[in-house]
Amino acid sequence: MAKLSTTELGKGPANFATLSPVGFLARTANVHPFLLSTIYGEVSYTWHDTYERCKRFASALTGLGVRRGDIVAVMLPNVPAMFESHFAVPMAGGVLCAINTRLDVESVRYILEHSNAKVMLVDPEFAATVREVVRRLGSQAPIVINVADDSAPCADTIGDLEYEALILQGDGSFEGGAPDDEWDTIALNYTSGTTGKPKGVVYHHRGAHLNAVNNVLYWNLPSRPVYLWVLPMFHCNGWCFPWTLALVAGVSIFLRKFNPSIVFDAIGQHAVTHMCAAPIVYASLVHSGLGALRFDRTVHGLIAGSSPPVSVLEGASKLGFELTHVYGLTEVYGPSSVCVQQPDWQEVSHEQQMQLHRRQGVVSPLQGEVAVLDPATLRAVPHDLETIGEVMFKGNLVMKGYFKDPDATEAALSGGWFHTGDLAVVDSDGYIVIKDRAKDIIVSGGENISSVEIEEVLYAHPSVVVAAVVAEPDSKWGEAPCAFVELRVGAVVLEAELMTFCRERLAGFKMPKRIVFGLVPKTSTGKIKKFELRSRLGSADAVYR
Amino acid sequence: MAKLSTTELGKGPANFATLSPVGFLARTANVHPFLLSTIYGEVSYTWHDTYERCKRFASALTGLGVRRGDIVAVMLPNVPAMFESHFAVPMAGGVLCAINTRLDVESVRYILEHSNAKVMLVDPEFAATVREVVRRLGSQAPIVINVADDSAPCADTIGDLEYEALILQGDGSFEGGAPDDEWDTIALNYTSGTTGKPKGVVYHHRGAHLNAVNNVLYWNLPSRPVYLWVLPMFHCNGWCFPWTLALVAGVSIFLRKFNPSIVFDAIGQHAVTHMCAAPIVYASLVHSGLGALRFDRTVHGLIAGSSPPVSVLEGASKLGFELTHVYGLTEVYGPSSVCVQQPDWQEVSHEQQMQLHRRQGVVSPLQGEVAVLDPATLRAVPHDLETIGEVMFKGNLVMKGYFKDPDATEAALSGGWFHTGDLAVVDSDGYIVIKDRAKDIIVSGGENISSVEIEEVLYAHPSVVVAAVVAEPDSKWGEAPCAFVELRVGAVVLEAELMTFCRERLAGFKMPKRIVFGLVPKTSTGKIKKFELRSRLGSADAVYR
Repeated sequence: MAKLSTTELGKGPANFATLSPVGFLARTANVHPFLLSTIYGEVSYTWHDTYERCKRFASALTGLGVRRGDIVAVMLPNVPAMFESHFAVPMAGGVLCAINTRLDVESVRYILEHSNAKVMLVDPEFAATVREVVRRLGSQAPIVINVADDSAPCADTIGDLEYEALILQGDGSFEGGAPDDEWDTIALNYTSGTTGKPKGVVYHHRGAHLNAVNNVLYWNLPSRPVYLWVLPMFHCNGWCFPWTLALVAGVSIFLRKFNPSIVFDAIGQHAVTHMCAAPIVYASLVHSGLGALRFDRTVHGLIAGSSPPVSVLEGASKLGFELTHVYGLTEVYGPSSVCVQQPDWQEVSHEQQMQLHRRQGVVSPLQGEVAVLDPATLRAVPHDLETIGEVMFKGNLVMKGYFKDPDATEAALSGGWFHTGDLAVVDSDGYIVIKDRAKDIIVSGGENISSVEIEEVLYAHPSVVVAAVVAEPDSKWGEAPCAFVELRVGAVVLEAELMTFCRERLAGFKMPKRIVFGLVPKTSTGKIKKFELRSRLGSADAVYR
Repeated sequence: MAKLSTTELGKGPANFATLSPVGFLARTANVHPFLLSTIYGEVSYTWHDTYERCKRFASALTGLGVRRGDIVAVMLPNVPAMFESHFAVPMAGGVLCAINTRLDVESVRYILEHSNAKVMLVDPEFAATVREVVRRLGSQAPIVINVADDSAPCADTIGDLEYEALILQGDGSFEGGAPDDEWDTIALNYTSGTTGKPKGVVYHHRGAHLNAVNNVLYWNLPSRPVYLWVLPMFHCNGWCFPWTLALVAGVSIFLRKFNPSIVFDAIGQHAVTHMCAAPIVYASLVHSGLGALRFDRTVHGLIAGSSPPVSVLEGASKLGFELTHVYGLTEVYGPSSVCVQQPDWQEVSHEQQMQLHRRQGVVSPLQGEVAVLDPATLRAVPHDLETIGEVMFKGNLVMKGYFKDPDATEAALSGGWFHTGDLAVVDSDGYIVIKDRAKDIIVSGGENISSVEIEEVLYAHPSVVVAAVVAEPDSKWGEAPCAFVELRVGAVVLEAELMTFCRERLAGFKMPKRIVFGLVPKTSTGKIKKFELRSRLGSADAVYR
């Protein structure tokens, strides 16, 4: 009986290649050599330039002793060198470790030591931090390369080597690309670690390739978009967008600093078509008062990080943004679920549409599955919008694991699912709705209270720009909700007024015990630092329950 | 020294899944259960329906004894059962063998015997052919399932089993999907075999997945297109578009018969946005005289199979088609190079633009490489638009090989490249331009003459609808070109006039020796049967030289 077997017709160089996003650069450099790849102030490069620069820098890294699997760390803002590192480092066989530029000396030292980084690229803005890190590391310090930048806020430099000089000396005929095994590591991303030590999330070439493609699929991203970099590239490798942009020959617009005025100017000047950012960024644009005029075209935006307030979705829509809400984590290469818009949403009220859009949605095309499961039994919760479970993913867009942390890896990937730690319910149409981080849930008098639900009510108030609710120790109830609120500039609202507003919209046991007005602390990626608010209140960081 | 190794963080169910296009159906059925998947006359199904029907049919196939690697043959037009087979057969672990419905009894018998097909689906139109095939196969005949169709041209049926009855009896909770190894075979496509026995081209799940995605990338295919099936699904599995349409939740419009009037009606009635076809199909639309009115929207068309004549590109553009020219073969899953449009083409004359568009272009995003190489040395030819070499591909979108034909497989994949047998030159911008099939080149007085070049001149004549040039034995020159020409209905052109037209545009040694007027024979996919023309002239089928 002749059956087709796997062994009969094997893999060979003609019909098999490892999946890697690195090859996207070579193809686009061949197909579109003269199209612009990157624009940073007065500096711009074509795809031919970028490929040439990456080959030269990859050869320089090889010359510095970087071998397959070696870590190359970068501490850079969104500048061309940061983009190029996403290709040059894996071309040299290395693993890119993009470090959050807001981190303190001790965290950076920990990451460099834990990853055993061999080489590090540093922007002048972070030279002082890295100088102290290098001092503490002593003989374990990496080779440091300065990435000179006239527009850096200080002229400080560190390192004996200079990025542009290495590129000049590098070999433009360098050949490097996909590894022999697509499971090989391409990037190591340390999570910001609101508690405990940072954990190193490991990405492989296959996943980076598939996620780069996935971004095109769920966003309907066309060829040759004009992409404004607002999202830091140190955050999940910019959701893999450096590789996506090489795939679709998009041009990257880099900004060193952000404020609403700079972002509006860049959108206008470069005719930006696409951008990604956290809700807080869109909120700042909406509330800036600068967007009185709509853009002269649609700007497609991905919005992710937490549930976007309705006011932000509406305001951004009025500015001319067409927003797609996505959800994910570092461990799943960035966005991994998407709130896919359904044709029949046109039939409901605008307010209802916004509520539908705010949900975390369904699994993205190339991820395997997203599900809300009872963490004890791994059974799916009913689609009743009420029963809370934990969001879990499985598929090719889940990390290899945590670097040098088998216990955390096993816990995170146990039972065949990646456990996000986010708590959610499922709507009747199968769309997931995040209620809270597991550690952000408030347990008051034995009742679970979703901090997000209270925040949503606060965001509905016209004067509220940012709202964050955390648990405060309470002698009677165990815990009680405490709200931190940032008001629109010039707005005056009394606590009593806001309390009344909440009382009309919330069950009694969910009412905030008090409201604290003032600036709410945020991370570099725009996430609210709830751990900092909790520590202000003397609350312990909650454990999973 | 801690290095990231491949073995350190292994694959598991949480972070690894085999690539297969089968899963696209489950996702889209979950995300868009109530959107239409398929429309065939009065029959239409939603994605929920299609998934349900596929699960039921997959369970029925399992019940009939289909096991992993077993061949399920189909002899069907573009109808829902054909679309569903692309999912149900692999869900059951089987391998789909879609047979060209125009084949004669002996060819079908050969394919069924060679593939050892276990089950076969048959449309009433082909019942008579299959009845004779089954008789000849005797005890080796597959189980035959009749796919009843009221709109079939005859009520003849064969087989004891009925497709809809099997679906009714099937198990809607059947679970089947990707195999454990993504290199496992998903489809077996016999090439039409203009000479010798048909060869069975073997596709794997990984390649089918990647090509389905590739179609989205090079075509900028948006979510939820309305896709008109003109291309037969038995041809390279419809270039993998059944899987692509599941990925992007597109709706398939099926037609049993084609003529320009039916195609124009379907485009209007269903608001078609996308279709794929051979140049001959677009030519028939252009020359039908029915397209006096433009479509009320752009219809995106892929055009592939041979170099489209300028008159067809221009005429289709006037109708409202936006055509993208692609090139490929069964061995590379269908289209694998694409004539990517460059922004600066807007600056040249319309005539020049059309000439640029006619080229076979550059490698598609997820294929590895396309190159024009000297077949003896495998060295790349210069980009001079003159030096002829053989088109070769490598990458994940190259077949596993030919089924049960190790010699042909080794020859086709030798030197790390798939050898297409097509001869081409390379333009200064790296775009490839096919000159001829290796076997279609004419050697006259020691000079190589490209039959395509002469055909292009003939197509430029306003009365010529189809042109085909083949070698005719010639006592003086060895071979000489002979042209076969189909004229527009009602046109009267004398051979002398067309000869003069050619003489003004061709070197003397390339002139056709004579021109034969009349209908030119074509295959079911619209390719001209040059072998038939050659045999009329008493030419031997040329071998590669």
